[in-house]
Amino acid sequence: MKGRVLVLGGDGYLGWPTAMHLSRRGYRVAVVDNFAKRNWEQEVGVEPLFPIPTLHERVRAWREVSENEIELHVGDLTDYRFVESIFQSFRPDAIVHYGEQPSAPYSMIDVRTAGYTQYNNVIGNLNVLFAMRDLAPDSHLVKLGTMGEYGTPDIDIEEGYLTVQHNGREHTFLYPKTPGSLYHLSKVHDSHNIHFATRIWKLRATDLNQGVVYGVETDESALDDRLATSFHYDEVFGTALNRFCVQAVAGEPLTVYGKGGQTRGYLNIRDTVQCVELAVKNPADAGELRVYNQFTEQFSVKELAEKVRTAAEQLGMSPKVINAPNPRIELEEHYYNAKHSKLLDLGLEPHYLGEELIDSMLEKIERYKERINRNQLVMGVKWSPTGAVKAPPSADIDPPTRERVPVAVGDKTPA
Amino acid sequence: MKGRVLVLGGDGYLGWPTAMHLSRRGYRVAVVDNFAKRNWEQEVGVEPLFPIPTLHERVRAWREVSENEIELHVGDLTDYRFVESIFQSFRPDAIVHYGEQPSAPYSMIDVRTAGYTQYNNVIGNLNVLFAMRDLAPDSHLVKLGTMGEYGTPDIDIEEGYLTVQHNGREHTFLYPKTPGSLYHLSKVHDSHNIHFATRIWKLRATDLNQGVVYGVETDESALDDRLATSFHYDEVFGTALNRFCVQAVAGEPLTVYGKGGQTRGYLNIRDTVQCVELAVKNPADAGELRVYNQFTEQFSVKELAEKVRTAAEQLGMSPKVINAPNPRIELEEHYYNAKHSKLLDLGLEPHYLGEELIDSMLEKIERYKERINRNQLVMGVKWSPTGAVKAPPSADIDPPTRERVPVAVGDKTPA
Repeated sequence: MKGRVLVLGGDGYLGWPTAMHLSRRGYRVAVVDNFAKRNWEQEVGVEPLFPIPTLHERVRAWREVSENEIELHVGDLTDYRFVESIFQSFRPDAIVHYGEQPSAPYSMIDVRTAGYTQYNNVIGNLNVLFAMRDLAPDSHLVKLGTMGEYGTPDIDIEEGYLTVQHNGREHTFLYPKTPGSLYHLSKVHDSHNIHFATRIWKLRATDLNQGVVYGVETDESALDDRLATSFHYDEVFGTALNRFCVQAVAGEPLTVYGKGGQTRGYLNIRDTVQCVELAVKNPADAGELRVYNQFTEQFSVKELAEKVRTAAEQLGMSPKVINAPNPRIELEEHYYNAKHSKLLDLGLEPHYLGEELIDSMLEKIERYKERINRNQLVMGVKWSPTGAVKAPPSADIDPPTRERVPVAVGDKTPA
Repeated sequence: MKGRVLVLGGDGYLGWPTAMHLSRRGYRVAVVDNFAKRNWEQEVGVEPLFPIPTLHERVRAWREVSENEIELHVGDLTDYRFVESIFQSFRPDAIVHYGEQPSAPYSMIDVRTAGYTQYNNVIGNLNVLFAMRDLAPDSHLVKLGTMGEYGTPDIDIEEGYLTVQHNGREHTFLYPKTPGSLYHLSKVHDSHNIHFATRIWKLRATDLNQGVVYGVETDESALDDRLATSFHYDEVFGTALNRFCVQAVAGEPLTVYGKGGQTRGYLNIRDTVQCVELAVKNPADAGELRVYNQFTEQFSVKELAEKVRTAAEQLGMSPKVINAPNPRIELEEHYYNAKHSKLLDLGLEPHYLGEELIDSMLEKIERYKERINRNQLVMGVKWSPTGAVKAPPSADIDPPTRERVPVAVGDKTPA
């Protein structure tokens, strides 16, 4: 037994594969989710590409396939009593925290989704920190952040900290962040709160500033169709490469926003689970906030689209790459050089983005081609005040997650 | 008519004097409050030193004394419909935002007060930003932040921004902040959200990183006893110099935390109202986040206590200065050099901390001596997990503000 790991957000695109991966490596794993993501999907009217069994069903399938047990807890991290009860019963050695609203476009729909995102993410994470402090002070938080927190500064992006010489003196700061959405800001707020908890309460934490993840499966999800992970290709929850692959299979143009010079770090979902395992295996010291930049390669959006086009053409498809109006407000040409050596030093063996990988994605997507809904590919959430999601949340919907939405606002999209 | 100014948090220690000051200078002023602070006072069992009439009563008294009208709106900034309705009816040119939970110790009581503080402050401020974006895009936000956001870095604290040379390139960041409480973190989160709103939505904002304020009255509050402002001397809501003065009058020792080398920026409440007026008079450009460090002098806590002792002795009192165990986790000896020239450049005429000022405070406090409650002087909220407020919020209290507290947690203080 390697230790007890609590995976928060265990129903998600990355949470579920991480839970299986750690379970297979001999960790005792418990997953936690409130299925809020499935409600957000309903709100904006999208579905994952593959049919995703309930988490209960996937936990049963995992037991059958792997003979490993994953514990399942259902509840909301913004409810401290719930968080407290899991910590009391499971007594985690590590907490892998994916349990947040993960979409930048969702956070930019309107004041309701913006306030909800920041409330849900910041308060949920704060509750986890208090539970660690009071119930598991020696446990290790492995928090999923994002490379998007940094924004695109004109200097190199270091791994978490920046040493500054100024007027003859020197100080090392948490690397200053200038993110591009209210979702990314929620993660910046989290990072500051976590830094506080390590400085003041001497907790242990690792902040994983993750790049954009692509890929449809891991070694574990490939074992059985029922173990599939929630793969989104829509504009709200889908990530760039995944969306381009689905556009190619659907015979739709690959929509590059603006000039396409936006450069970001990317990684394969197989490397996500590997990185998280490395972080869990190498806990931070008491009082330490360790920060890793978790990605393996940098690409511009344009380069990414071209890679998908090339691979798709080899398979007999003929996608176009088009420059669509950019719904986001961001630099489309900028300096970008982000360091990412610490996880390699710990032993990360990257799966680089080769044609083979894109081929296998295209082939898997091809098998589910009839499930592709073209309406989800371009949805029109805009960063500017005139933005409107095509299917705005309706005032009539009142899903359970709404109960905790603190912003009692009409569901109008901004005028 | 100089313009329409909305003062959020208009019932508070600084909000009310600011409203009167601006009203007297010819601005059309509306105050907004939900009186949450009066509930927090009940929760921890403290009262301001002077009897404070209701805000309705003070607005009436102001009309009588000054012949100026201040509009009064009652509601909660975390309720977007309310925020929207004020913006629609009052159409502000400037918004002076004091409407936040202002106490570091309150935020450190337990998971409930911590979560509440961040939720209340961050979501309230976010709602203001959305209302500006959608209803008053040309208005100017004057947001009260705090010097405490910066923490105590080993380099000079600049006014808001830091230009960094790194690996042969250069970038100017919002000055990176390392604050010392979950309350201060809520203000850091606000600053990041405001920066985003100026960058992405091109709003106008000025962030006032204010030092510790002292003083009992302004030119306006001195006009009539009914115009008094909420002066706290307790350990939760009172600021250092104010508390020392009350301790001196009460014949209690002046309690300096730890070594007392903690150095901070300070300013007179008369300078607060002057600074806010200067900020309102000089709006930021569209897309600009202007940042001022709003204080006039730096002192260590030890120096401050000595100043009060000296003044008190001249008045025939004989207070002791003692070093009490520090309930906070902070450096007690550190480098501190914070720039603060921008408000002087705009014309600020500081009221420096002289013996005369302390004398007048001591004399005014003396008149209310019989109202001093010694139990409020030392309350024992601690930064470490073993901290406990003397009068913890009771599970039986369910004031209106509680309805919106998102963290449904037992009112236990941490074990």
